Amino acid sequence: MGYVASGAEGFNRDMNYIDDRVVADPSGFDPATTASGQGHPWPVEAGRYRLVAARACPWAHRAVIVRRLLGLDGAGDPDQPAPLSLGLAGPTHDWKSWTFDLDVNSVDPVLGIGRLRDCYLHRYADYPKGITVPALVEVETTSVVTNDFRTMVRDFVTEWTPLHRDGAPDLYPAGLRDEIDEISDRVFRTVNNGVYKCGFAGSQSAYEKAFAELFATLDMLEERLGNRRYLVGDHITLADIYLFVTLVRFDMVYHGHFKCNRYTISSRPNLWGYLRDLFQTPGFGDTTNFGQIKDHYYIVHTDVNPTGVVAVGPDPAGFLTTHGRERLGGSPFGEGTAPAAPRPEDVRPGDGA
Amino acid sequence: MGYVASGAEGFNRDMNYIDDRVVADPSGFDPATTASGQGHPWPVEAGRYRLVAARACPWAHRAVIVRRLLGLDGAGDPDQPAPLSLGLAGPTHDWKSWTFDLDVNSVDPVLGIGRLRDCYLHRYADYPKGITVPALVEVETTSVVTNDFRTMVRDFVTEWTPLHRDGAPDLYPAGLRDEIDEISDRVFRTVNNGVYKCGFAGSQSAYEKAFAELFATLDMLEERLGNRRYLVGDHITLADIYLFVTLVRFDMVYHGHFKCNRYTISSRPNLWGYLRDLFQTPGFGDTTNFGQIKDHYYIVHTDVNPTGVVAVGPDPAGFLTTHGRERLGGSPFGEGTAPAAPRPEDVRPGDGA
Repeated sequence: MGYVASGAEGFNRDMNYIDDRVVADPSGFDPATTASGQGHPWPVEAGRYRLVAARACPWAHRAVIVRRLLGLDGAGDPDQPAPLSLGLAGPTHDWKSWTFDLDVNSVDPVLGIGRLRDCYLHRYADYPKGITVPALVEVETTSVVTNDFRTMVRDFVTEWTPLHRDGAPDLYPAGLRDEIDEISDRVFRTVNNGVYKCGFAGSQSAYEKAFAELFATLDMLEERLGNRRYLVGDHITLADIYLFVTLVRFDMVYHGHFKCNRYTISSRPNLWGYLRDLFQTPGFGDTTNFGQIKDHYYIVHTDVNPTGVVAVGPDPAGFLTTHGRERLGGSPFGEGTAPAAPRPEDVRPGDGA
Repeated sequence: MGYVASGAEGFNRDMNYIDDRVVADPSGFDPATTASGQGHPWPVEAGRYRLVAARACPWAHRAVIVRRLLGLDGAGDPDQPAPLSLGLAGPTHDWKSWTFDLDVNSVDPVLGIGRLRDCYLHRYADYPKGITVPALVEVETTSVVTNDFRTMVRDFVTEWTPLHRDGAPDLYPAGLRDEIDEISDRVFRTVNNGVYKCGFAGSQSAYEKAFAELFATLDMLEERLGNRRYLVGDHITLADIYLFVTLVRFDMVYHGHFKCNRYTISSRPNLWGYLRDLFQTPGFGDTTNFGQIKDHYYIVHTDVNPTGVVAVGPDPAGFLTTHGRERLGGSPFGEGTAPAAPRPEDVRPGDGA
């Protein structure tokens, strides 16, 4: 089932995303909970969907980490099918967007598709918007269900609970949601998006405005993380995951490629300790691939880097050094446990270093 | 006097520079001491020449520092004419190269020239090579005498001695010349030129080769500077000046703009201490202008940075922090003394910070 579009249905919703949601109870669904106000509900169901991501993309990285931490990847029992399998596009792409060029014959082994674009066109034959990851694809129809990374990731936490592993951490505790939302909103505007605003600024003044906002937030975070191990509460929440995906790319690409160069993260004691602490936590470093990250930014953005030469530095070995953050108390997963090692089919060369 | 060319003489020497030299004794001159083997001698003479430089350019910066340290700038007695006056082109330029756009009416006040190119054409009407700084220009004829920065700077030290100030340091001591030449040659190939090889590499392999050589030398220098205050001997020599002009630009532009990003200089204790020590020494920081340096690289190199947006960071305040290098012994000027503060006409807004 599901709202699989024919070509005739067309794409006429006024939005930037296919903003359907996958929820525990579709019968009580309120479309007002989607970005367009017109999104559809799909049922949570093991094996029905495939998460298509790319190691390069920070927005996809959010979904990949949350999938790991909650056990939607089925890491604990690799002989059983994963509740939510993972397709990984390669780091670079052409105007038709992400392709499965890392897979055998350049075809995703579950979807049988070479270009992610086809999954969008199977949903809406005239789909006019960007072909983005993360995308949740219905396996049977090879059609995109949603590419709204905000609701997708939150729904993994709050709707996909029947498929969570034993010991899955609570990444969005009821009593902390206001605080998580507040800091995540600022991080989203000034850090996650902020680095892009710096890098793609069309004028000096637009760049300098984004630069000032970015570093004002990083300064605030450096201070906040001086006496607390995680951003909100005593263990990892969605707020940490949202921040991590930009911090882990910062010195590697944003500092130089996007001119976010007031300082490196590795020069700030608290942010650098915090980043290494997360990186060394299962689910974070093991889903990070610096080679693919650098290839993506330096090769795809020919308007920023016309030569396509990929910067060599900095040395990722620094991410594995002692951080000493345990002194601040707290525990990564609260009352939950760490996820098991990734399933072999979820690992790519260069992951984790 | 001097070998001022008519347009008819033409430019037919096989070389990249106008490689004449200004020497103490022109009568005993050996043309084999010039790069082309065909260069001419000019006599050292107070007030006869004007050094045209630009704050942005590291090659010009060498000449400007040496001029200051030796007192060729006449800083000690600003009521008297300078032995060698200084013209400063602005940070950006068009295809016709450096212009005096920082001066009143965009004209150099001594030469009466708007574009440095005209001084080259006054020497050779068909001059086919690059219009570069530093250039030594004969004031009366507004013609370039030499733009060979290597012999020019060394001649300031070894030939212009009658015009040196009292207390001028010996920047090229006879007993240390082999060691200075050896380290300067490696610094020239892999650091001074190395950063340009990285930034302008036309292929990934050319970039990675230059990157490896650059950081191999920086690693060596980091170790060498761990137990000695200066590169050679116990006080500042030409080797330090040659290295300084690249190090001082490194975190500001080369790290990001030229992809020299294995590490920042400020993350290496010895190089960073050494760089700050020199920066805080008269003649070094007071001839550095970070605003003009950044404008030059980010705006002129449209092939590297198509948007022309100028990176904001890093904060230059770090250059003025305590370095603690005095513990290593030595003294900046050996038996000499520090130069006096720059003459007012040699100071531009933003110098020294």
